[in-house]
Amino acid sequence: MSQYSIAVLAGDGIGPEVMREANKVLDAVEKKFNVTLNRTAYPVGGYAIDTEGEALPSKTLLGCEQADAILFGSIGGPKWDTLPLEQRPERAALLTLRSHFDLFSNLRPARIYPGLESLSPLREDIAKSGVDVLVVRELTSGIYFGQPKGREGEGEEEFAYDTMRYSKREIRRIAIAAFEAAQKRRGKVTSVDKANVLVTSRLWREIAEEVSKDYPDVELDHIYIDNATMQIMKNPAQFDVMLCSNLFGDIVSDECAMMTGSMGLLPSASMNEEGFGLYEPAGGSAPDIAGQGIANPIAQILSAAMMLRFSMNLGDAADAIEKAVVATLEAGVLTGELLPSDKRSQAASTSQVGDEIVKQL
Amino acid sequence: MSQYSIAVLAGDGIGPEVMREANKVLDAVEKKFNVTLNRTAYPVGGYAIDTEGEALPSKTLLGCEQADAILFGSIGGPKWDTLPLEQRPERAALLTLRSHFDLFSNLRPARIYPGLESLSPLREDIAKSGVDVLVVRELTSGIYFGQPKGREGEGEEEFAYDTMRYSKREIRRIAIAAFEAAQKRRGKVTSVDKANVLVTSRLWREIAEEVSKDYPDVELDHIYIDNATMQIMKNPAQFDVMLCSNLFGDIVSDECAMMTGSMGLLPSASMNEEGFGLYEPAGGSAPDIAGQGIANPIAQILSAAMMLRFSMNLGDAADAIEKAVVATLEAGVLTGELLPSDKRSQAASTSQVGDEIVKQL
Ligand SMILES: CC(C)[C@H](C(=O)O)[C@@H](O)C(=O)O
Ligand SMILES: CC(C)[C@H](C(=O)O)[C@@H](O)C(=O)O
Repeated sequence: MSQYSIAVLAGDGIGPEVMREANKVLDAVEKKFNVTLNRTAYPVGGYAIDTEGEALPSKTLLGCEQADAILFGSIGGPKWDTLPLEQRPERAALLTLRSHFDLFSNLRPARIYPGLESLSPLREDIAKSGVDVLVVRELTSGIYFGQPKGREGEGEEEFAYDTMRYSKREIRRIAIAAFEAAQKRRGKVTSVDKANVLVTSRLWREIAEEVSKDYPDVELDHIYIDNATMQIMKNPAQFDVMLCSNLFGDIVSDECAMMTGSMGLLPSASMNEEGFGLYEPAGGSAPDIAGQGIANPIAQILSAAMMLRFSMNLGDAADAIEKAVVATLEAGVLTGELLPSDKRSQAASTSQVGDEIVKQL
Repeated sequence: MSQYSIAVLAGDGIGPEVMREANKVLDAVEKKFNVTLNRTAYPVGGYAIDTEGEALPSKTLLGCEQADAILFGSIGGPKWDTLPLEQRPERAALLTLRSHFDLFSNLRPARIYPGLESLSPLREDIAKSGVDVLVVRELTSGIYFGQPKGREGEGEEEFAYDTMRYSKREIRRIAIAAFEAAQKRRGKVTSVDKANVLVTSRLWREIAEEVSKDYPDVELDHIYIDNATMQIMKNPAQFDVMLCSNLFGDIVSDECAMMTGSMGLLPSASMNEEGFGLYEPAGGSAPDIAGQGIANPIAQILSAAMMLRFSMNLGDAADAIEKAVVATLEAGVLTGELLPSDKRSQAASTSQVGDEIVKQL
């Protein structure tokens, strides 16, 4: 019987309660698919600051190193927002994990589920046009990590600077990830850049073109980031895979997530070249609704499915979870934010949604 | 009688035909307000490349230097897209003009006009919530112009880099522009940054806070760029003035423009500290519809109104044009893109819209 080990980092806010449901689903997968998914919980984020003095304690990092994958909840909240930037949960834990494990390949799917179109902030005809985008974001380079970064000078001429930087190698590996994904989808990559202004973007475009030669079955387009934010609003169904640098991917993936109107359904994967990955919901820690049992666990559960698919090669189990989620949505077992305001009293709780998904499995 | 001189750079695509209507309106303003608006036309963009060999001929630059303001049409098109980047219309003409005249303060208003809500790609309730945003974008610094920029190294480790850079002085002057604008509007500035990642953004936030102390009647908020692109979709009515760096302003202003669904109505102003400015429509040269007499001239006409207000201190004339535009929209004299597809046969032509605005004046 195959056996895997998972570092479970639930974190802050709604993290722990949605992670409980993901664990239920993973228990069910163990039985149904005859695998062992050993899970060990580690502190991270604000909770780790409060209990261990830092957002990413060394035992947590060590636990992640020994695991086959990290299942991540969410971190941060107003309580830790006044800390110096470098100690805050987002930077000290999330950016450090990304960089430590070289998790360069970030997959963020965003789709509008049939029947849930009215949640989208977009006009009905646009929301119903068949929106299903995968943002492939480079996650360990670009202006997030480029050196030098700093402050210099005196008085009013004092200035701050950041460096946007990409090597051919870094662009090539994320471009390959995008083309591979597009082959399994609708065969189209749209590369997002600002090649009319940035030297980095020109190299980005050059390498995207080079890589595309190895994928004759995939179509490649280029779009400027400013136009991309417009087209996502006007006609999101035109996009299949969007290939983005770190900063542009941050922007594009959030706009795509919001466009669906159902952030609580969106998972994400951040992987390295060895298939090791961190899997987390697209939404944040939502401190305003934490602890009330009303948060949607689906993004966390679909993140677990991505983990099974990409880090454990358990595509069947991942498929089964994804089908169970669709069945649960179709059965109308929905948390409140997915319901029109006059139907909120019929909302299912976090654990009811988890239970239904297990049942559908 | 006061007298002003205007360099008229109509450019490519729909530029010349919409400029014709702006000129009609300025003729009417001369009579009604007893001013002289001397206009001289100069070649720019692709047209200048074809006729003079470069996108910004020296006689054009000289003409701009001698004028009180530049009224700009639009430039670029597929014909010139294969030129080396540095020679292309957008960079060689537009970015050069911005930097040559230190046009650091870019104002891009975006509003949804009552009655035109159905054009917006946003859901009806959002489009009807009273959307009226002014994006104040820094236009002569940041990653567009920061040095160094380049390429280095060999093989797969060859890398490209750009520098994002802001001095306190540069941030302060654009922040002041945003607060001044907010005082005349609804008293709220939302500063857009990525202060959880960028050193430049931290300085940006610091100076925005400093400047806000001089404007106790204006409220200041900060928002991350990724969240900004979400909030513009979800609840654009929350924004009054959005204060942005060059790159983030490029993205935010285009998303705001698209959100209105009526790009052909949106003007923009780019000004320096002496009140000299370049005024241009938010949309592009639209080569696909050029020469057919169907382009909407309103963005060009409202750009002329901004010019009268900001570079010539003719607020009354600007008000009058803006009122005439609203009256024209209310009278239903609309170009095709503002009409539902089944009513396009009743569309007014470019010159009919111009004539109606003159009449309403
Ligand atoms: C928390 C922040 C640093 C992070 C990012 O910008 O990458 C977040 O916005 C994300 O997209 O995962
Ligand atoms: C043409 C391009 C260089 C320009 C920019 O990025 O500033 C345009 O997108 C704009 O917003 O005016």
